[in-house]
Amino acid sequence: MLFHVAMEVRLPPDMPAAKADDLKARERDLAQALQRQGKWPHLWRVAGRYANISVFDVADADELHALLSSLPLFPYMDIRVTALARHPSAI
Amino acid sequence: MLFHVAMEVRLPPDMPAAKADDLKARERDLAQALQRQGKWPHLWRVAGRYANISVFDVADADELHALLSSLPLFPYMDIRVTALARHPSAI
Amino acid sequence: MLFHVAMEVRLPPDMPAAKADDLKARERDLAQALQRQGKWPHLWRVAGRYANISVFDVADADELHALLSSLPLFPYMDIRVTALARHPSAI
Amino acid sequence: MLFHVAMEVRLPPDMPAAKADDLKARERDLAQALQRQGKWPHLWRVAGRYANISVFDVADADELHALLSSLPLFPYMDIRVTALARHPSAI
Amino acid sequence: MLFHVAMEVRLPPDMPAAKADDLKARERDLAQALQRQGKWPHLWRVAGRYANISVFDVADADELHALLSSLPLFPYMDIRVTALARHPSAI
Amino acid sequence: MLFHVAMEVRLPPDMPAAKADDLKARERDLAQALQRQGKWPHLWRVAGRYANISVFDVADADELHALLSSLPLFPYMDIRVTALARHPSAI
Amino acid sequence: MLFHVAMEVRLPPDMPAAKADDLKARERDLAQALQRQGKWPHLWRVAGRYANISVFDVADADELHALLSSLPLFPYMDIRVTALARHPSAI
Amino acid sequence: MLFHVAMEVRLPPDMPAAKADDLKARERDLAQALQRQGKWPHLWRVAGRYANISVFDVADADELHALLSSLPLFPYMDIRVTALARHPSAI
Amino acid sequence: MLFHVAMEVRLPPDMPAAKADDLKARERDLAQALQRQGKWPHLWRVAGRYANISVFDVADADELHALLSSLPLFPYMDIRVTALARHPSAI
Amino acid sequence: MLFHVAMEVRLPPDMPAAKADDLKARERDLAQALQRQGKWPHLWRVAGRYANISVFDVADADELHALLSSLPLFPYMDIRVTALARHPSAI
Repeated sequence: MLFHVAMEVRLPPDMPAAKADDLKARERDLAQALQRQGKWPHLWRVAGRYANISVFDVADADELHALLSSLPLFPYMDIRVTALARHPSAI
Repeated sequence: MLFHVAMEVRLPPDMPAAKADDLKARERDLAQALQRQGKWPHLWRVAGRYANISVFDVADADELHALLSSLPLFPYMDIRVTALARHPSAI
Repeated sequence: MLFHVAMEVRLPPDMPAAKADDLKARERDLAQALQRQGKWPHLWRVAGRYANISVFDVADADELHALLSSLPLFPYMDIRVTALARHPSAI
Repeated sequence: MLFHVAMEVRLPPDMPAAKADDLKARERDLAQALQRQGKWPHLWRVAGRYANISVFDVADADELHALLSSLPLFPYMDIRVTALARHPSAI
Repeated sequence: MLFHVAMEVRLPPDMPAAKADDLKARERDLAQALQRQGKWPHLWRVAGRYANISVFDVADADELHALLSSLPLFPYMDIRVTALARHPSAI
Repeated sequence: MLFHVAMEVRLPPDMPAAKADDLKARERDLAQALQRQGKWPHLWRVAGRYANISVFDVADADELHALLSSLPLFPYMDIRVTALARHPSAI
Repeated sequence: MLFHVAMEVRLPPDMPAAKADDLKARERDLAQALQRQGKWPHLWRVAGRYANISVFDVADADELHALLSSLPLFPYMDIRVTALARHPSAI
Repeated sequence: MLFHVAMEVRLPPDMPAAKADDLKARERDLAQALQRQGKWPHLWRVAGRYANISVFDVADADELHALLSSLPLFPYMDIRVTALARHPSAI
Repeated sequence: MLFHVAMEVRLPPDMPAAKADDLKARERDLAQALQRQGKWPHLWRVAGRYANISVFDVADADELHALLSSLPLFPYMDIRVTALARHPSAI
Repeated sequence: MLFHVAMEVRLPPDMPAAKADDLKARERDLAQALQRQGKWPHLWRVAGRYANISVFDVADADELHALLSSLPLFPYMDIRVTALARHPSAI
C-alpha cells in the first residue's frame, strides 16, 4: 500500500554540529537501505526547505509507523501522512 | 487496516427537501450495510455539527476510497482520512 | 459519555533520555489501567506522528479533564477534545 | 454538564426576507423556551457578527446535539462545541 | 460591560516546580478575589487543556486589560478577547 | 470606549448593479453621519481590497453592535472586532 | 524538472451530470495522453477525497502551467505546486 | 514606492464565456497599459493557478488602490498587498 | 502615507527582568519621540494581549521599515503591516 | 526559470551578537555575489519584518535549492518557494 509522506526537519539551532552530522549520516544510511528494499520508492527534496516529499510502499500503517519512527531524525520531524489509492486515470 | 475518517456534510441550502431526504435515506442504508459487514466499526456524531467521526476497517486505501466515494453524500462531504497504527500502550 | 481525544506529544528535544523514558513508562501504565477500567475504550497511534487518537468513556467533562490532566505526559501534550453523540445511522 | 457553544449564522444572501424572518422568529421562540427550561443558561451576542456565544447545561452530548440540531437556523450555522469542566479556582 | 476571554496557559517545560506552584497559587488567589468582586462572573476549565474560558464584567477595555495583565500567569498566557453584546433572544 | 473594527465586504457577484449601488450609497450616508456624531473617528481603506479598517468610539459593545448591524452592507460583511485599551506609551 | 502537484476538484453541486461526465472523460483522456508522453509520471488518488497527488516532469514552470491550465477540470480545481529537487539521500 | 501584490482570480463557474472573455480582454489591455506607464513593472503567472504575483511602482497606497480597484477583474479577485522597502543587501 | 501596524511582543520567558525593563523603557522613549514627531499618530493597546495596533504616517515603506526596525523590541516582535488608502466615505 | 522566494529570518533571541553579525555579513556577501551573477535578480525587504521577497533566475529547482541551502542564514529561515511562469498579459 502507498503512503505519501511529507517530512519537515527542525533541528534545534543550538544542537552541536557533530551530533547533527551523526544524525544526518545515520538517517541517510537507513533511508538508502529502505529504498533498496523497495519500501521507500520515491524521495524528493522540497526546493528551498529542509523537507522532503516521499512515497512509501508498505503493508499497512503499522509498518509505515514502525519505519518512520525508527528514523534517527524522527524526534525532530513534523510528518504528514496521506493514504494513496489507485487513480482511475492512472495508466 | 484501520482508518480514522472525519466527515463534514455540506448540503446546498437550496437543495429540495425531497432530494436531501432521499440522499440521507440511501446514505443511512449503505452505512448500516457497511457496519454489518464490519467495514465501518465506529460511527459517532460530532455534537453540534452535521459531521461524523468514523473508523473504517478495510484492506487498504483503495478499498477505503471505493467505499467512501460510493456514499450518496460523498459529493457533499469534506472528508479527512488519518491512517491508524497499533498504539504500543493499547491493551 | 464519549469524548474523541486527539493528543500530540511534544517532548523538549533536550530532555534527558532517562526522564523521557520514565514519563513514557508511567504514561503507559496509567493508560493501560484506564483501559482496563473501561474509561479509555479506544487508543490508536496516528501513523507517522508521536500522536494518538483516543475515545474516552466517562461520566462527564469533569472526569475527562481529571483523567487527562493526571497523565504524566499531560504538560507536554496538545490535546483536542470533541464531544461525541450517538449517530442516527449507527447500528 | 456544561458545553460552550459558538454559533456563526450564515443565511444565503438571496434567501427571501419572509423566510429569513420566519426562521429567526421560530429560532427566538425555541431559544427562549430552552432558556426558561434552564438548558441554555447563557446566550451572548458577539459584537459585530451575526454570531453568538452560549453555554448549554444538558445531560450529555446526545442531548446537546438533539437541541442544537432542532434549532431552525441549524442548517445555516457553523457551530463549535467545547466541553467545559469545573475550574479549580472557580468559587 | 461583558468580555469573553479565552486563556491558554503555556508554562516553559523547564520552569522549576516551586516557581510554577507559586505562580498558580497567586493566580488562584487573585482570580478568586476578582470573582468575589463580581469582575469575573464566569470561569470554566476547557476539558483536556491547561486553558479556561471566562467572562469578565468590567467598565471597559482599559479595566479589562489592567486586570488581565495583573494576573501572575499573564506572561505565560495566550489570551483571546471577544466583546459581548446583549443577545436579542436572551431572556 | 474604542473598538478596532476590520470589515471585509463580499457582495454576491450576481447582485444587480442597481441594488449594489443603492446599498453603497446608503452605507456611505450612514457612515458619514456616524463620523459626524463622533462614533466612527477613523475609517481607512485597506489598499487592494474591498475592505476597511475603522475605529469606533462608543459606550460599549451593545452600542457597537447596534451601529454595525444597522449598516446596509452588514449582511455582506465579515467583521472582526478588537477591544482597544489605552497604551501606556501613548502620549 | 519535477513538480509535485496536489489537485482538489470542486465541481458545482448543481452542474448537470452530463456536463460533469463529459469533463471527466476529456480529463481522463488528456491525463492518460500526458502520462504516455512521460510528462505526468505519477498520479495517485488521495483516499477519501476528490483529489489527486501527482508528479509532473516538464522543462519548466511555463510548460507546467500550460499543461495544467489545459486540463478540462482546471477551472474547478484548487492546485498547489511544489518544486522538487534531487534529494541527497535518494539512490 | 513598491508594492508586492498577489492576485487570485475566482470567476463564478456559471459566468457566461462571453462575459468572462470580455473581462479578460479588458483586463489584459489595462494591465499592458499600466506596464507601459511603468506602474506595473513585474507581472508573473503563479504556475498551476489562475493567479499572479506582481510588483507595482506607485506614489502611495491611494494610487495603488485606485489602480487595483479599476481592474475589470477586481470584483472577482482576492488580493494581498505587501509594502516593499529597499533591502540592505540589494545591489 | 499611512500604514496600519499590528505588533505582538514575545519576550523570552527566561529574559532577566532588568533587561526586559530596560528594553521597555527605551521602547517607550522612542515611541513617544516618534509620536511627538507625528510619525506615529495612533497607538492603542490590544486588550488582553502584550500587543498594540498602531498607525504610522511616513513618507513610504523605507521610512516605515527604518522606524520599526529601530525599535528596541523589534527582534522580539511579530509585526503585520497593512497599507492604508483614503476611504471614499471618510469625511 | 524564475522562482518567487519569500524568506522569514528567525534568529534565536539568545544568539551572541558577534555570531549574528558574522552570519549577516556572510549572507550579504553571498547575496550580492549571486545578484551580480544574475541568479538573484530581485531582492526586496518586507516592510516591518525581518523578511525578504526575492526572485531567483536559475536553471531548475536543483540549482535553486543548492543556492538557498548554501545561504549562511538558511538554518534560521522559513522559506516559501513559488514557481513562476510567463504571464500572458506581461509585455
